[in-house]
Amino acid sequence: MSVEKIIAGEFDAQVAIDLLRELRALTEDEQGAQRVAWTATWRKARSWFLTQVDGLPGVEHHRDAAGNNWVTLKGESEKVLILGSHLDSVPNGGWLDGALGVMAGFAVLKHFALNGPPPVTIRVVDWADEEGARFGRSLFGSSAFAGTESVAADRVRTDREGVTLEAALRENGIAIEAIGNAAVERENAAAYLELHIEQGPVLESLGLPLGAVLGTKGVERHTITFFGQEAHSGSTPMTQRHDALAAAAKLALEIRPIAMKHPDAVCTMGSLKTFPGIVTAVVGRVEATLDQRDLDADVLTQMFNEALTASYKFATEEGCSVNWSRIWSIEPISFHPKLIEFCEEAIREVARHVHRLPSGPLHDAAEVARLGIPTTMMFVQSLGGISHNHIEDTREEDLILAVKAFFRLAEKTMAWILEN
Amino acid sequence: MSVEKIIAGEFDAQVAIDLLRELRALTEDEQGAQRVAWTATWRKARSWFLTQVDGLPGVEHHRDAAGNNWVTLKGESEKVLILGSHLDSVPNGGWLDGALGVMAGFAVLKHFALNGPPPVTIRVVDWADEEGARFGRSLFGSSAFAGTESVAADRVRTDREGVTLEAALRENGIAIEAIGNAAVERENAAAYLELHIEQGPVLESLGLPLGAVLGTKGVERHTITFFGQEAHSGSTPMTQRHDALAAAAKLALEIRPIAMKHPDAVCTMGSLKTFPGIVTAVVGRVEATLDQRDLDADVLTQMFNEALTASYKFATEEGCSVNWSRIWSIEPISFHPKLIEFCEEAIREVARHVHRLPSGPLHDAAEVARLGIPTTMMFVQSLGGISHNHIEDTREEDLILAVKAFFRLAEKTMAWILEN
Repeated sequence: MSVEKIIAGEFDAQVAIDLLRELRALTEDEQGAQRVAWTATWRKARSWFLTQVDGLPGVEHHRDAAGNNWVTLKGESEKVLILGSHLDSVPNGGWLDGALGVMAGFAVLKHFALNGPPPVTIRVVDWADEEGARFGRSLFGSSAFAGTESVAADRVRTDREGVTLEAALRENGIAIEAIGNAAVERENAAAYLELHIEQGPVLESLGLPLGAVLGTKGVERHTITFFGQEAHSGSTPMTQRHDALAAAAKLALEIRPIAMKHPDAVCTMGSLKTFPGIVTAVVGRVEATLDQRDLDADVLTQMFNEALTASYKFATEEGCSVNWSRIWSIEPISFHPKLIEFCEEAIREVARHVHRLPSGPLHDAAEVARLGIPTTMMFVQSLGGISHNHIEDTREEDLILAVKAFFRLAEKTMAWILEN
Repeated sequence: MSVEKIIAGEFDAQVAIDLLRELRALTEDEQGAQRVAWTATWRKARSWFLTQVDGLPGVEHHRDAAGNNWVTLKGESEKVLILGSHLDSVPNGGWLDGALGVMAGFAVLKHFALNGPPPVTIRVVDWADEEGARFGRSLFGSSAFAGTESVAADRVRTDREGVTLEAALRENGIAIEAIGNAAVERENAAAYLELHIEQGPVLESLGLPLGAVLGTKGVERHTITFFGQEAHSGSTPMTQRHDALAAAAKLALEIRPIAMKHPDAVCTMGSLKTFPGIVTAVVGRVEATLDQRDLDADVLTQMFNEALTASYKFATEEGCSVNWSRIWSIEPISFHPKLIEFCEEAIREVARHVHRLPSGPLHDAAEVARLGIPTTMMFVQSLGGISHNHIEDTREEDLILAVKAFFRLAEKTMAWILEN
């Protein structure tokens, strides 16, 4: 149980941490958090969250057409500051990814609910299905809000049991045709802020608790298939092979210098499958994935072209051929310069030192930002850079600093909204 | 139906080809040959073969304690020339792998059955389960004959349905404890000859139909596991990764120069598996296989040591660790110099040109040779070097040359046996 500690006029960051622990106890098993979107455990998490909201004076909540939960506290201005993140997790996930941002936003809203109206209307949003863990469609709710939903492609997506996304939505009371109606929630939106764990090792390696996020990197994500010639490992001379694994191995190594020409770029071969994949056969076919990210669209294009060219070269060298198939891509999205500045100020006020960094992982903030709503994010250090795992963790003192800095960022942003 | 064409005194190679076609029609579906050992289709193939034997004068057949079928034609001497190979295939296999050697041996035996007794006793053996396709234990029957059976390790082997090898043997009327009794079949054995398709591209690339086999290469077969650190592909800078795939990719490329220092050596990474193996995660663990072969034991040891050393180097470079686990190994086995010479002579007599080559794939002949029985093999060209596949094929004129040369090899060997 969380303990009521709010004293008039003083912001209580601890409330967010206490709620995170409650949520953890409610939705985690030995393998980790199980709040996968559109499942019973996720619904339990959201219901629990709304019971926290229900006791607060002047606070309304409702679910929109795409399944996003909105908690609204009217302010002196009708202009809206949105604070958000997501309660859903990957299977066997961590306790902070997504939930931290919702609880931090709620702590800010709760403060103003108990201490008189905020200067602008504050809304906390719990986006539906950020992770895309069950159906492979991430940013589901925020894309519907932003008008970038893809109903035709998504309705037929299936989970491992063959259930369609459309059917899972229906089970959750959502009609997939109508999710675009979530756009009505944009009304009066003046800014969006999101606090999230970094999910990477940069802040830890710098010894800093908090970072101001410049934007989300663009992503090029492809499947690359090398075709060689399956052959007997014992009877096929080295010089007569068409080894698809050799071509793929060369590319796995070459993507690294391609990325390292640029300070923040990353290129990853995350999956490589060999066919027939037996100890006694030269590999006839490889299916590999490539994920490339950078905050600069030109850099991203250059890296993609270099990897493509390298793959053709290696295929030729190994007597193989190669096919590329785009899985998915998104352009880089830069956050709002003024809000980034506020974020840096807020961090310096509570933690003295700040680092500016792009976000490699995507976040709901990217969907909001590309709609044109001024947006930024704040990152708090992840221990070991680990997330999407039950050992995901952040020091409690860093979580407290993060929620305090996020409150200050919200205050600065509200003042700025009023000026504009 | 095969047509009886034997004319007294003239060897008929065509009989072997006709029988191969009959067997193919009997045991092949659209995916290829289905004569997997210990299955109904294999038993059908063997029964059909024994019906071919049954009509011949003076010919006896029986099955030994390990399931090998022996067809015996008494000769003027009690000394025995064994001609053999195997009727079992891999699933979706080819029509020639194994079956060619049995049919060629049978054609030789049939010739003498119809044309007076041979100078020495001729026995044709159809070894049981050469491929090890269902239980992963190759050379099953010939190892029992040679006294290198491994009952304790093998009885608990299971197929994909969980059936144990012991149970499958029992279903085929064989008690696994007793398979070593197949050693009684060694009595008076003076030489062993085996005709087989090359299963590789060497003869085709030289434009030659036939080759004399020097021996079977030794094999070192290992699983190599690289341990890195799973990490988010978007948030983990290139310089802070412990990418298990990078270490494995370096090894996949390095095994090639290690092999190519030696004329006939081969090194193959046939399987590489990435974990977690998802597009958005740096690879935390790789399981790869390595298969190394050469006819020279010292070369094999050198290649193994060089690969081991390289793997440690690459693991260190990538901030990973590495484990090796031996799957299986066998020493190189050289065939008998005199029989290799006869094989070359026989090939020159029917096809003018001969090539000497080691066998990369293992064969039952290796088990017989390491027992000390003078042994050699003859290879016939494989189109495209392809086997273990329904498109496995050899030109009919080359098959005819092969069976003719094999007959001559048998004649030369029988004469040599009598002299010794």
